[in-house]
Amino acid sequence: MAVSQERFDSVCARAREAMLLHSTADTLEWDERTGMPIAAGEYRAQQISTLRALVHERRTDPAYGDDLQQLVQECENEDPHSTIVATARQLHRDWQRDCKLPTELVERISQATVRGQQTWDAARQADDFSIFEDTLGNVIDLKREAGQRLSEGTDRSVYEALLDEYEPDAKVDDIQQVFDDLRTPLVKLITAIKESPQQPDTSILERTYCIDDQRDFSHFVAEQIGFDFERGRLDETSHPFCTTLGPHDCRILTRYDPHWLPAGLFGTMHEAGHGMYEQGLRPEWFGLPPGSYVSLGIHESQSRLWENQVGRSRPFWEWLYPQTSEAFQSQLDGVSLDTFHFAINTVRPSLIRVEADEATYNLHIIIRFDLEQQLIDGSLTVKDLPEAWNARYQSDLGICPPSDADGVLQDVHWSAGLIGYFPTYTLGNVAAAQLFDAASEQIGDLDELFARGEFRLLLDWLRERIHFDGRCYSGSELIERATGTPLSATHLVNYLKSKLEPLYGITDS
Amino acid sequence: MAVSQERFDSVCARAREAMLLHSTADTLEWDERTGMPIAAGEYRAQQISTLRALVHERRTDPAYGDDLQQLVQECENEDPHSTIVATARQLHRDWQRDCKLPTELVERISQATVRGQQTWDAARQADDFSIFEDTLGNVIDLKREAGQRLSEGTDRSVYEALLDEYEPDAKVDDIQQVFDDLRTPLVKLITAIKESPQQPDTSILERTYCIDDQRDFSHFVAEQIGFDFERGRLDETSHPFCTTLGPHDCRILTRYDPHWLPAGLFGTMHEAGHGMYEQGLRPEWFGLPPGSYVSLGIHESQSRLWENQVGRSRPFWEWLYPQTSEAFQSQLDGVSLDTFHFAINTVRPSLIRVEADEATYNLHIIIRFDLEQQLIDGSLTVKDLPEAWNARYQSDLGICPPSDADGVLQDVHWSAGLIGYFPTYTLGNVAAAQLFDAASEQIGDLDELFARGEFRLLLDWLRERIHFDGRCYSGSELIERATGTPLSATHLVNYLKSKLEPLYGITDS
Repeated sequence: MAVSQERFDSVCARAREAMLLHSTADTLEWDERTGMPIAAGEYRAQQISTLRALVHERRTDPAYGDDLQQLVQECENEDPHSTIVATARQLHRDWQRDCKLPTELVERISQATVRGQQTWDAARQADDFSIFEDTLGNVIDLKREAGQRLSEGTDRSVYEALLDEYEPDAKVDDIQQVFDDLRTPLVKLITAIKESPQQPDTSILERTYCIDDQRDFSHFVAEQIGFDFERGRLDETSHPFCTTLGPHDCRILTRYDPHWLPAGLFGTMHEAGHGMYEQGLRPEWFGLPPGSYVSLGIHESQSRLWENQVGRSRPFWEWLYPQTSEAFQSQLDGVSLDTFHFAINTVRPSLIRVEADEATYNLHIIIRFDLEQQLIDGSLTVKDLPEAWNARYQSDLGICPPSDADGVLQDVHWSAGLIGYFPTYTLGNVAAAQLFDAASEQIGDLDELFARGEFRLLLDWLRERIHFDGRCYSGSELIERATGTPLSATHLVNYLKSKLEPLYGITDS
Repeated sequence: MAVSQERFDSVCARAREAMLLHSTADTLEWDERTGMPIAAGEYRAQQISTLRALVHERRTDPAYGDDLQQLVQECENEDPHSTIVATARQLHRDWQRDCKLPTELVERISQATVRGQQTWDAARQADDFSIFEDTLGNVIDLKREAGQRLSEGTDRSVYEALLDEYEPDAKVDDIQQVFDDLRTPLVKLITAIKESPQQPDTSILERTYCIDDQRDFSHFVAEQIGFDFERGRLDETSHPFCTTLGPHDCRILTRYDPHWLPAGLFGTMHEAGHGMYEQGLRPEWFGLPPGSYVSLGIHESQSRLWENQVGRSRPFWEWLYPQTSEAFQSQLDGVSLDTFHFAINTVRPSLIRVEADEATYNLHIIIRFDLEQQLIDGSLTVKDLPEAWNARYQSDLGICPPSDADGVLQDVHWSAGLIGYFPTYTLGNVAAAQLFDAASEQIGDLDELFARGEFRLLLDWLRERIHFDGRCYSGSELIERATGTPLSATHLVNYLKSKLEPLYGITDS
């Protein structure tokens, strides 16, 4: 059965129109988070929800669904990874997902999560989980209901159906295996680091770094590693993110801390990594599966690779440090490259995920992954959550939050209904290390390139192996195609050990 | 016949929904003009035209028109200036106007003016009117056709029907009278100024004024005169403007020139004047006639009043100059208040409208007003336009453009289809002077207030007399209600003479 070109074109036109409106709403959100006047919030929310409703209307149109169904049938004997077949399959999948949730449930979730975020904010400020308890319970119940509907007629669990929104086709068992393989060696390494007498001097990063200088410097670094400022821009906001508003319009946002240089610098490299992924998608397929990112885990692998595998490597600083000590002369006067490089690679168990180093970070994620599964399957009640949280921090990281504000109330995600989102952070870290190993093997001496400030070959490799295909393969298929093996924790463990053990003078952890 | 509340509410809901989408498109345009990545233009244009089409669909919906027709009938014996009746009348009027132009004509105009602006830009850069001739001819023909359709069944001329879009209910004869009354005394005054041996030293304004300092200073001035930064913001762009994106979201934009202090400073005061008008409209009526600006002429009266009647007055600088010479110490060292005040009130015939002073500016407008009427009624062909332009500059301003780039090609308006737009600039100047006289009479000693940096009473007066009513009255009705007399050129003439004659040592011009 041949694929009807006319039907395909019509389906694409409708998906593109929905994307036009979707990216418009994203533009309004970008503006809201960069500099919208404070009194303008209420009207802005109305604009955004009007647009989101227009998008939803288009994406759940029954005639559009019928066409997609037909197309999928016509594609049955074709190459599943061709742009046409992948477009039909993924749009049909999105359509089914969008239709599975009744509008009234979507609206109830939307209201619950708006209230959820407000209540979370109030509870965190008051450092009082009880304020948040009922609201969170409501969000969890609604997300469970959504997960039940999404899992109907599939072989997935309720949690897996929720996870699927962020990491399509991922299996909980696979993730569990990767996390298990990661946890034991990580805990061992972190313990050895904690006990080492050799510790970095982080005070050099806490000196006053003027924000204007940091801004110029971050812009320079983002440009050097390959973020294209003709097709994007860099701004500031309180919670850094990356958003794409058109095929040639990627916006990255960072935050500078005058007393903590790494925040703005590595924040920028992280977001630039996200941005370069978006900029590497094929613009002519913008708004369609071949031109869309495949999963949050893969997205995070790109940001983490540039932030950590590149940005915290020794060769990178062999290139950048002379310019850094020039740009921040008074702050870095007399500080050697060794001292600086050790300081930006500090590992220390801490309470707050977003401030965690690249080794302990994953332990924060594993805790959340375990707890949110229990919340959804009902084996943990919201009431018992703070105690469970604290117990896990004590056992896994060896520290106990003195209060809920620094514990269970630290992240906005659950209040916003983002269940199944956390594991993608660690999947990204794991994938970044595995991709970096493959790139090193295939390209050759990356260290030598970095030491000369040459990043183009690495970016091109990522473009070709990851960015180019969009959603034509699944995330795990892409990893396997690029690296030759399925996702495995080994690479991240080896990467961390081989960098951190010499720095901390550890023979073998 | 009573007004049906249900029908009224439904009509308002539909108008508000159209406004949500309209203000969304305006947000995209604001972003485009403030910092959108250069490669993003094409997709942005698609987003904007999709939104504009959705707005047009809603605003020309026949069922909506029927409801409006009904409402207007129900309102027949009610107070025409009440919010309900004005809403019905003005929305019905907008609906009629929107429906009078067939979609295909609107699209042809849209395409012609997009091409028009591109061709204009190319012609101006090449300094070659012949490149632009055919394209402009096409725009004029299409606008004439639009004007013919809009004037059908009314007693208005084709030109008046076009003017009506910017200055509703204005009569060409009335404008002609005001312009005639203005022209003779203005030419006399300008001639006397030209011949005066007493001339200002403008070089003090051409020193290097660092843009960062200008930015801080302009922000300070805008805030002091009353622009509300909780409900608005100030940014930079190449062609300054003011746009309102929501009931509490007014954006003003300016441009700083490091070698011409007045550009950024008075540009900011000008846009802040526009902004304060928008911020004075009733937010609860946002998107409906009682919460909308009445006409471009009235809008311009607000910007010009703050820029000129306030910003170029002697008492204003008695307050601000000490702070100015502090902020720009090295540039204004040894420059007296008198010298500064004279410099910012320089009058000198020049070729470029946007750089013209407040006296000669109106002569630029009168030329355009005359020529565009002739283009529309066919008594002047596009081919003969450059010659007619140069002849008028010679006779009215005593200078002849050395080339079309500094002559007929200087303004984008006609290429963009803005016919009937120019006269609103001078109507604004005339209204500003008249309003200021009335305010002085009713409030008392404004000079004394300005010298103390006190502008609240003037702003409140404008709020009450002009801003509050939105479109419940026409522009000319508002002027007459606020000042007691119809619009007249006398006030502007007297204002200019009484300020400029003493500065230039003229006994009587």
